[in-house]
Amino acid sequence: MKVLVLGGDGFCGWPTALHLSATGHDVTIIDNLSRRMIDIELEVDSLTPIRPIHERLATWTEVSGKTINFINLDLAKEYDRLVDVLLSQKPDAVVHFAEQRAAPYSMRNSKAKRYTVDNNVSGTHNLLAAIVETGQDIQVVHLGTMGVYGYGWSGSAPIPEGYLTVKVPTPDGEIDREILHPANPGSVYHMTKTLDQLLFAFYAKNDGLRITDLHQGIVWGTSTPETALDERLINRFDYDGDYGTVLNRFLMQAAIGHPLTVHGTGGQTRAFIHIRDTVRCIEIALTNPPANYEQVSVFNQVTETHRVIELAQMISQLTGVEIALLPNPRKEAAENELNVTRERFLGLGLNPTTLSEGLLEEVRDVGKRYADRADLTKIVARSVWNKGMEVAPDLMK
Amino acid sequence: MKVLVLGGDGFCGWPTALHLSATGHDVTIIDNLSRRMIDIELEVDSLTPIRPIHERLATWTEVSGKTINFINLDLAKEYDRLVDVLLSQKPDAVVHFAEQRAAPYSMRNSKAKRYTVDNNVSGTHNLLAAIVETGQDIQVVHLGTMGVYGYGWSGSAPIPEGYLTVKVPTPDGEIDREILHPANPGSVYHMTKTLDQLLFAFYAKNDGLRITDLHQGIVWGTSTPETALDERLINRFDYDGDYGTVLNRFLMQAAIGHPLTVHGTGGQTRAFIHIRDTVRCIEIALTNPPANYEQVSVFNQVTETHRVIELAQMISQLTGVEIALLPNPRKEAAENELNVTRERFLGLGLNPTTLSEGLLEEVRDVGKRYADRADLTKIVARSVWNKGMEVAPDLMK
Repeated sequence: MKVLVLGGDGFCGWPTALHLSATGHDVTIIDNLSRRMIDIELEVDSLTPIRPIHERLATWTEVSGKTINFINLDLAKEYDRLVDVLLSQKPDAVVHFAEQRAAPYSMRNSKAKRYTVDNNVSGTHNLLAAIVETGQDIQVVHLGTMGVYGYGWSGSAPIPEGYLTVKVPTPDGEIDREILHPANPGSVYHMTKTLDQLLFAFYAKNDGLRITDLHQGIVWGTSTPETALDERLINRFDYDGDYGTVLNRFLMQAAIGHPLTVHGTGGQTRAFIHIRDTVRCIEIALTNPPANYEQVSVFNQVTETHRVIELAQMISQLTGVEIALLPNPRKEAAENELNVTRERFLGLGLNPTTLSEGLLEEVRDVGKRYADRADLTKIVARSVWNKGMEVAPDLMK
Repeated sequence: MKVLVLGGDGFCGWPTALHLSATGHDVTIIDNLSRRMIDIELEVDSLTPIRPIHERLATWTEVSGKTINFINLDLAKEYDRLVDVLLSQKPDAVVHFAEQRAAPYSMRNSKAKRYTVDNNVSGTHNLLAAIVETGQDIQVVHLGTMGVYGYGWSGSAPIPEGYLTVKVPTPDGEIDREILHPANPGSVYHMTKTLDQLLFAFYAKNDGLRITDLHQGIVWGTSTPETALDERLINRFDYDGDYGTVLNRFLMQAAIGHPLTVHGTGGQTRAFIHIRDTVRCIEIALTNPPANYEQVSVFNQVTETHRVIELAQMISQLTGVEIALLPNPRKEAAENELNVTRERFLGLGLNPTTLSEGLLEEVRDVGKRYADRADLTKIVARSVWNKGMEVAPDLMK
């Protein structure tokens, strides 16, 4: 299958591009290297020493004998070039990761809020409009987020995969209606993924585009079988307060002896997936396109759920590093239950990689190996959801 | 009340700005004159000879003794100037009409689809982000559309005002949940208003912004008591296939003896409101801000519903002009019922201006008076929802 991976230089995109190439797909990465530029803006760097994209690609060819092509293109701003790429490449599918993906960054200031909305919405819409304009039957696989559903909305009911059947009152009695699960985003970033859902629904209905939306949990781990083949293929590892995700942050903090930074009570329950399963899920979604051209196919891309404080306690017990309870910069419930339906990927053969001591150890080893690259002033989260919310001081100098 | 009217040079914005000024508010219009520029792009002009904005404003001062200020600003592209305007003007409220508002135009081609999304989403988001950034308690009144609900989704149930209470199944039995009515937009334009809803919901929840969203039906009429005071205050009248709305198009067509252009069977039922009521509704919404800062206040801004073919038949009988059944360029049900809840404005004292022979006559008179300004090649709708859909030839030379 000929596949364009939009955002193929990022944390999920890069290992996905390698995995798709390894499994026999013809892969071209499209990326404007924006994630590397945000590193420069935030004055922080991936903990792991990621190589320039062309060195990555040359290494992949050296190691695997396969070629991944690269096009530097801004999806949100270079529409005409995008149309040209679709016409010349004639892809069977596009995997769309090309969005600003950090909730804290998206709440950082007006500039970051606006960038997140403008980049994510215009990028997604440009892709859909360009597919319609070229008249090609190109499948779209998009990385969504569990955050579109919010937390605790439906009480003890499990979160369904995209669609919810509800009873609507009418003068003639109740009728059943299948609706897109109501949106309840917790940040500007998550909000953009709820906007994406409406863009997809319209273009599926009006133009019959084949679209799959993957509502992913929090990714942990950094390494996949392909990125582990050579140091120069190493994946990103974000540990900072804006881009670092919770479990990876704890493991990195444990590795360098930094207190584990829990925001609020830690009573938040969240869904998780290992990066190895992310890349497998994308391949499964690609090879199982929607049955119905008029309706977006939605999967929950999640393998397990955990309460944040319990993860912190587990890692604290494993490593002896203490827990620091810090002010919560987010506006969210102090505690929530989370019960996620995840039958679709299991039904298509996903064998989940769940939390294990060995895998936790592997991530902690990455933290130790590159500990000297860590900037201790970047660990504590500083982006707040409302002006004036309390932030913690640095915990280590 | 100090009010900024964004999009105050347009078809709804201009008479609203005058009405708010006439009722004692301190009004500043913010507009980038984009609607006049789209006229140039489409090579068509308002049937009525609208005057340049500064002539309009000078006339208003001459006629009323009141002043309306004007700032030429692109809401979607001049964020920093917008912040400066909010800081210097310190408005109590912003009325937001500054969006591309024609469904056919939004489906015309990729450029128009992209402009509609980028302009409408970025503009609305910029406004919300700027209000948060300046830290002022500025009320927002936004013009939405009945099209966010779609047609026929809930069977015989009346369309509620924004929120719908549904029963959600849980393992412990059904629970009631109030949700934003599911979105079912029929065009890229309508889709942008469903995106706006999610932006508003997030900024109300996260930042406590006071937001009112008005889901308006199809506006008819052109004249209000204020625009009628002087020829130089005349409002726009769009009769072309992209911007002309159905009832006004029929009346203009009848005035010049052009067949009444019904697309499809005409079995579509739609909601209507006279422009005189639009301006009153905005004033009512302004002076009745949301009770709850965390939840957007939604009104249906509608006074009656009619089936398109029945409107055509009525006008045909009044005038003797025949009906032409043309191919439908839209993807929509051939027929639908429509039952709209509209208690909120009635409860706040709106005395609806409904269809009457006198008012129809008034619009037809405008059509006759400016008949020589009509370009007969612009009357038939040419924007289609999918490539290759049939369009009608010109019916008059």
